[in-house]
Amino acid sequence: MSTHPDPAGLAAELRAGLPERALVTDPDVAASYAHDMAGLCPAGRPAAVVLPDTVEQVQHVMRVATRLRVPVVPQGARTGLSGGASAVDGCILLSLVRMNRILEIDPVDRVAVVEPGVVNADLSKAAGEFGLVYPPDPSSWETCTIGGNIGTGAGGLCCVKYGVTAEYVLGLDVVLPDGELLRTGRRTAKGVAGYDLTRLFVGAEGTLGVVVRATLALRPTPPPALVVVAQFASTTAVGRAVAAITAAGHVPSLMELMDATTVRAVNDLANMGLPERTEALLLVAVDTPDPRPELAAIAELCTEAGAFEVLAADDADDSAMFLTARRLALPALERLGSSMIDDVAVPRSRLADMLDGVARIAERHDTVIGVCAHAGDGNTHPIVIFDAADTAATERAGAAFDAIMALGLELGGTITGEHGVGTLKRDWLARELGPVGVRVHRAVKAAFDPLGIMNPGKVVAAEG
Amino acid sequence: MSTHPDPAGLAAELRAGLPERALVTDPDVAASYAHDMAGLCPAGRPAAVVLPDTVEQVQHVMRVATRLRVPVVPQGARTGLSGGASAVDGCILLSLVRMNRILEIDPVDRVAVVEPGVVNADLSKAAGEFGLVYPPDPSSWETCTIGGNIGTGAGGLCCVKYGVTAEYVLGLDVVLPDGELLRTGRRTAKGVAGYDLTRLFVGAEGTLGVVVRATLALRPTPPPALVVVAQFASTTAVGRAVAAITAAGHVPSLMELMDATTVRAVNDLANMGLPERTEALLLVAVDTPDPRPELAAIAELCTEAGAFEVLAADDADDSAMFLTARRLALPALERLGSSMIDDVAVPRSRLADMLDGVARIAERHDTVIGVCAHAGDGNTHPIVIFDAADTAATERAGAAFDAIMALGLELGGTITGEHGVGTLKRDWLARELGPVGVRVHRAVKAAFDPLGIMNPGKVVAAEG
Repeated sequence: MSTHPDPAGLAAELRAGLPERALVTDPDVAASYAHDMAGLCPAGRPAAVVLPDTVEQVQHVMRVATRLRVPVVPQGARTGLSGGASAVDGCILLSLVRMNRILEIDPVDRVAVVEPGVVNADLSKAAGEFGLVYPPDPSSWETCTIGGNIGTGAGGLCCVKYGVTAEYVLGLDVVLPDGELLRTGRRTAKGVAGYDLTRLFVGAEGTLGVVVRATLALRPTPPPALVVVAQFASTTAVGRAVAAITAAGHVPSLMELMDATTVRAVNDLANMGLPERTEALLLVAVDTPDPRPELAAIAELCTEAGAFEVLAADDADDSAMFLTARRLALPALERLGSSMIDDVAVPRSRLADMLDGVARIAERHDTVIGVCAHAGDGNTHPIVIFDAADTAATERAGAAFDAIMALGLELGGTITGEHGVGTLKRDWLARELGPVGVRVHRAVKAAFDPLGIMNPGKVVAAEG
Repeated sequence: MSTHPDPAGLAAELRAGLPERALVTDPDVAASYAHDMAGLCPAGRPAAVVLPDTVEQVQHVMRVATRLRVPVVPQGARTGLSGGASAVDGCILLSLVRMNRILEIDPVDRVAVVEPGVVNADLSKAAGEFGLVYPPDPSSWETCTIGGNIGTGAGGLCCVKYGVTAEYVLGLDVVLPDGELLRTGRRTAKGVAGYDLTRLFVGAEGTLGVVVRATLALRPTPPPALVVVAQFASTTAVGRAVAAITAAGHVPSLMELMDATTVRAVNDLANMGLPERTEALLLVAVDTPDPRPELAAIAELCTEAGAFEVLAADDADDSAMFLTARRLALPALERLGSSMIDDVAVPRSRLADMLDGVARIAERHDTVIGVCAHAGDGNTHPIVIFDAADTAATERAGAAFDAIMALGLELGGTITGEHGVGTLKRDWLARELGPVGVRVHRAVKAAFDPLGIMNPGKVVAAEG
């Protein structure tokens, strides 16, 4: 698709509309931008990195790219886990990290207007000064950018009650592949004026255009949450607990599950004294103004479902301590070897089936797999551990990773709940969508990007 | 675009794949399906009405339509207010009202799977038996269909807390213009697998395909709400109250506003004894488990903002009585003449400016305009009253209706918060979107419907 013009020619064209510091052409420096955090996804060699300061500079880059048929890969903080921000050969890496201004926070309209390079935590802090919160809280929230969150449709722990990134994006400014500026959506709480182009860009991983400004909805900061922790001797019992809590109409602000492998890894790391017979640990938080009655009811449901130990926090300190185990889960598992984090969501009712199936997959492929899950959403993160120096073990890990996605689809789920498709799951997306879905995806892609220069090969493969 | 084949030929082709009762070709009977409730929007003459029972029959209709290049207009209960479901000349009216089965309600996954012809109230009732609720509640909820709600992106009173239709649609089965069946979205709580095609169909008014099945999210039924009613002697004061309630972090389950014209009309109809000096009446409901403290705080904010009378309900009966005024608003205004309901949403902070501006428009165009508003969303419904037998008055009313949209755009709002575009607001949509937005809309439309047979002329005009 790309004609890959000579790099000097490309650099000259780019330089014509950019300040000196916005352009990186040194191959080694450029290569340092080539990967996001999807360790095993191969990345290409970029022709240049551009770090624009303004919308006009982004438009210039896209006009050059269109004229020269050069692929463009938009990037935020490159904390993504699916290869969506990784370079393709000969591309311009368009890093939006310098466009990091919070342009406005309005407490009456409850909106923030931000540039794409704003770090999630910086927005949270700024909103907090108005008693407001921007809820989506991916694990990487202290470093990841809002633009990246929008590109991947990021989730997080609190999404079980407050929803994912998509639900907070009201409107976008997007530079299209030809350099035109498209304004989508609105600043109002409601609006149905035309097709929902805003949502189309959320999760599109920069394959349709470059988000250069976002109008985001904020919420009032909820009261501090209290946490109950419950330990189960079987996955069936924990699945029963999650189902019972949901069916009883509770709306926890967090409902996290850790499987036996994860619990043991955390125990080994932090000496937490969790009993050997724990097959699953469930953490449930409630952040209503008076959480204790609801917390007690949830604790009771856990006991009824078969939990052998249930502890309800008395205060915020207890709650924070209980959550330590969850915070240590990933570091504890990553100590055991190289890791690949999967991201398969299943209907809540199939959570126990998913846990059991993953345990069988681990056994069948002779691989360690620890599972953390946003249980309230049915969004599991099986973490496949392997020795990257051992080719056979790496292959088994890859096979296990794929088997987990197959299991998710079989259980009526999806191959990605919140991490996105990138290159890592592109072939699996085609399997989830089916031929009609793939055809429609390609038609939509072509409607925005007829030349195929916008982050090519991500989400959907080019035709043929 | 359409070649308008002879009606007998079209009927024969349709009949080949439909049961006898599914096809209506009698011109008078067919004509009775030609309009939705956008009284002043002209409708064309349909060639036939089809009332399918199955997805396969819908696919057959679309294949015939594609082969013969005949336009197809999908319809639900035709309660829409923008002409989106009105006939175009020579079209097949595809009424989905017989596909009205609730296929599944799952209290653990909190989803319902329904056919498009299910009436909103029937779903609410069925969900209620599981302690669940399908929140979107347009005024027509007792007759309108879920398919129509999806087509228009319908809202309602409770959206201020619980969101609009779009937020409850997890996945769709859609018959594309060529008769292929597309499955979008998911059954899981979260998912980011590919482009958000689900959202693209919500609010697309049947211009991209025919929704034949929907997977919807449900919520636990909230506790009964208590209502506070406040009367203000100026729009400035009520605007201040709405802003203060929002800025203080309250999340009411309803926040409805009626202007002086509406209050007087309701008074005249129901003898409610509301004082003459009321320039605005605000109703605010809270449905938390213990609503009284929050209700008292909201009442206090209303007083501080300048309300001259504030009453907080003691119980559900009081609350219902307070809401009577709101329920009578539309009937009370409609007694005064023919009416056109506008649907302009503005940022919450501009609500008072919107009310004042509408009052000026009413004066300038010598027309009665009563405003009801979902104040918490900034979604106003100025209702323009006129004598349809008086040509000059009708013209003045039309000019006022347009001026209201212009004012909404000027205040940073949108021409439609929840009623949709149809034909009524098509030219205004182009104004809101701008040339780049219109171009992208046309490209998206063409990606799904290259022949332009899918509800042509709605939302966006054909090119050229």
